[in-house]
Amino acid sequence: MTDVASVKSVEWKDDRLLLLDQTKLPVEVVVEEQTSVEQVWDSIKQLKVRGAPAIGVAGAYGLVVAMRGKRSLDRAAFLAELKKHAAYLDTSRPTAVNLSWALKRVVAATEASDASTGDDLFHVVTSTAVEIHREDIHICRQIGEHGVDLITEGMGILTHCNAGRLAASDWGTATAPMYVAHERGVPFSVYSDESRPLLQGSRLTAWELMHAGIDTYTITDNMAGFVMQQGLIDMVIVGTDRVAANGDVANKIGTMGVAILANHYGIPFYVACPFSTVDLATAVGKDIVIEERGEDEVTHFGLRRTAPEGIKVRNPAFDVTPNELVTGFVTDHGIVRPPYKENLQKLFG
Amino acid sequence: MTDVASVKSVEWKDDRLLLLDQTKLPVEVVVEEQTSVEQVWDSIKQLKVRGAPAIGVAGAYGLVVAMRGKRSLDRAAFLAELKKHAAYLDTSRPTAVNLSWALKRVVAATEASDASTGDDLFHVVTSTAVEIHREDIHICRQIGEHGVDLITEGMGILTHCNAGRLAASDWGTATAPMYVAHERGVPFSVYSDESRPLLQGSRLTAWELMHAGIDTYTITDNMAGFVMQQGLIDMVIVGTDRVAANGDVANKIGTMGVAILANHYGIPFYVACPFSTVDLATAVGKDIVIEERGEDEVTHFGLRRTAPEGIKVRNPAFDVTPNELVTGFVTDHGIVRPPYKENLQKLFG
Repeated sequence: MTDVASVKSVEWKDDRLLLLDQTKLPVEVVVEEQTSVEQVWDSIKQLKVRGAPAIGVAGAYGLVVAMRGKRSLDRAAFLAELKKHAAYLDTSRPTAVNLSWALKRVVAATEASDASTGDDLFHVVTSTAVEIHREDIHICRQIGEHGVDLITEGMGILTHCNAGRLAASDWGTATAPMYVAHERGVPFSVYSDESRPLLQGSRLTAWELMHAGIDTYTITDNMAGFVMQQGLIDMVIVGTDRVAANGDVANKIGTMGVAILANHYGIPFYVACPFSTVDLATAVGKDIVIEERGEDEVTHFGLRRTAPEGIKVRNPAFDVTPNELVTGFVTDHGIVRPPYKENLQKLFG
Repeated sequence: MTDVASVKSVEWKDDRLLLLDQTKLPVEVVVEEQTSVEQVWDSIKQLKVRGAPAIGVAGAYGLVVAMRGKRSLDRAAFLAELKKHAAYLDTSRPTAVNLSWALKRVVAATEASDASTGDDLFHVVTSTAVEIHREDIHICRQIGEHGVDLITEGMGILTHCNAGRLAASDWGTATAPMYVAHERGVPFSVYSDESRPLLQGSRLTAWELMHAGIDTYTITDNMAGFVMQQGLIDMVIVGTDRVAANGDVANKIGTMGVAILANHYGIPFYVACPFSTVDLATAVGKDIVIEERGEDEVTHFGLRRTAPEGIKVRNPAFDVTPNELVTGFVTDHGIVRPPYKENLQKLFG
C-alpha cells in the first residue's frame, strides 16, 4: 500500500505535471500527466484536483505547461502569452481564491524579473511554481508540527470532510498533526464522517489515512454523536474555508453539528488551517454568505435518485461554527486559543 | 397526486391483500396483490413491507391468504395448517416483535372459537386480521389527535427516518400529528433528514408527506443543525423502536444527535409511539443492546462503492437518546411529560 500512500494530489517530476484524478477515488488510483494547458483547465474544472491549496499549485504549474512551447518568444510576446493563459486558467474555478492568487503571483514574478529572453522568463515561471508548491508543503508540515502534541497514545480523533493531503500538496491541514504523530509512532484511531452530500470523508479522507497506515473508520454523519457517546472520541480536528476575525469558522456543512456534539460531550474541538485562512476583513461569521448548491446533490446519490421527484431541498455547502465552540486553531504559526479577536489578530502582527 | 397519497402500505380490499412495494420508492409506486403465503413471506423478507405495525398487519392477512384454500378442512386439520403457516411466516423477520404478536393473536383467537368447520374457522382468521388492522389505524389516529395541538400555524418541524404511514397501516406515529394538523388546514413545513445509511427519510418520509400535500423539504442528516441555527425548526418529532421505563429512547441511528442539537437550540423534542412501545421490563436505555449491521450499508450507496476497499466501519442501527433530552411522549393515551419513571408507568395503570 506504500506506493498508493505516496501518491500526491499534485506532483512535478522530471519537468512533468502529474495530477491524481480524485474523481476516481476511492475505487481507482489514476495519475494523469498534464500535457496541455487545456487539460489542466479541464482537470481543475472537473474536480480531478480539488482543495484550495492543491488547485493553486496545479494552476501555477499549468502556466509552466502553457509556456513550455513559448520559450522562443521575446519578452513582450512571452508576457502577453503568459497573461492570456493565466486569465484562461482562472476561469476553471472562478471562486477558488488560491487559484487566482497563485496565477497572479507567477505573472507578477515573471514581469518583475529583468530577464529579456523567453527562455529566461520561462525559468522564472517554473521556479515560481516550484516555490509556491514548496511553500504549501512547508505550511502544512508546520501545522502538523504545531498540532502533533495534541495527539496522545490510544486517542480517538473524529474529522469531517477532507482537509487532508489530497486537498493540498502534502500533509493537509486537519490531517497534518495525524501524519506527524503517525510518523513518530504514536498509535491512535480516526473516525471519518462520510460527509454527505459529496462524501469527501468516506471517498477521500478515509482513503488517504487508511493507505498511510493509520487506524481509520468511516461512519455516516449521523453516527458522530454515537461514537462520542460511546467514549471513542477524545478530540475533533477539522479544516476550514474561512475564519472570521472573531474566530467563527466557515467549513463544510455538518461541521457545526459536530462542534455542538463535541461541546455536549466535553470533547475538544480544533480547527487546523494556514494562518492566511483567517480573514480579518470578515468581522463575524454571520457576514459570510453561505452558498446553496444544486438540488441533485441531495436528491440523488451519484446517478441514483434517492428522493421523490418534485421534493423541495436545502443544500447549503457549508455552515458557520460559532467561536465559543472552538477549543483552538492549529496554524502554521502555532496554536491559537481564546480570546480569538485579540489572538488571531496577533498572527498578522 | 391524490391517488398516490391514498396508497396504503397494507390494504385489504374485496378479500384481496395488497402491499405497496416500498423497495421501489421513491421512484416507482408499485402495489402488488399477494396471492400466496410464500409471496407474503417474501414481501416481508425483502422489506417490500416494513415498519413494525405494518409487518404485523401484513402477517395477519398472510394467514388469511394461507388458509383461503383450506376452508374444506375439519377443525383439527384447519388449526394444524394454520399453526404451520403462522410458524412459517414468523421466520420472515425473526426480530419483528409485532409480527410474532399478530400471528399468535390470530392463532389464539381461532383456537378459542368454538367453530367446528373450516369455513367458520376461516371467518375467525379473517375477522381477527381485520381487527388487528383496524386497531393499528385507530392507535395511530389517536397519537395524531393527542399530538395535533403541538403543531401551530407556520411551524417548522424536523423529523428523522420514517415513522410514517408507510411504517404502519395509516397515519404513522411521528407523522400522525402532522396529518391531523394538515387535515384541519393548519399550514406548516417539515424538514426530513435523509437518514443514512438506508435513507428512509428521503425515500419514504419525504415521499409520503409531499404526496399528502404537506410542505416538505429533504436535507442530508448533517444539515439538521444548520436549519435549526437558521431558525427554521420549532419542534422535532420522531418515532421509536423501544422506550425504556425511565424514558430513554431507542430509535434509528442519528436520533440522539438530533436531540442534542434541538437541546442546544432550545427546540422541543417529542417522541411519538403507541404506549405499548414503552417496555417497563427495560429499566434504562443502556440495557438496550444496539444491533450493528453490515459494513456494506456504510461503504456503499446502493450498489456503488463510496468508501475504500478494506476500510473499517461502524454501523450501529440505532442509538439511545437520554430521557433528559425528551420534551414529551405523544402516545395513543395522551402526551406524557417528565418525570418519566412515574408518568410512563401510569400508562399501564
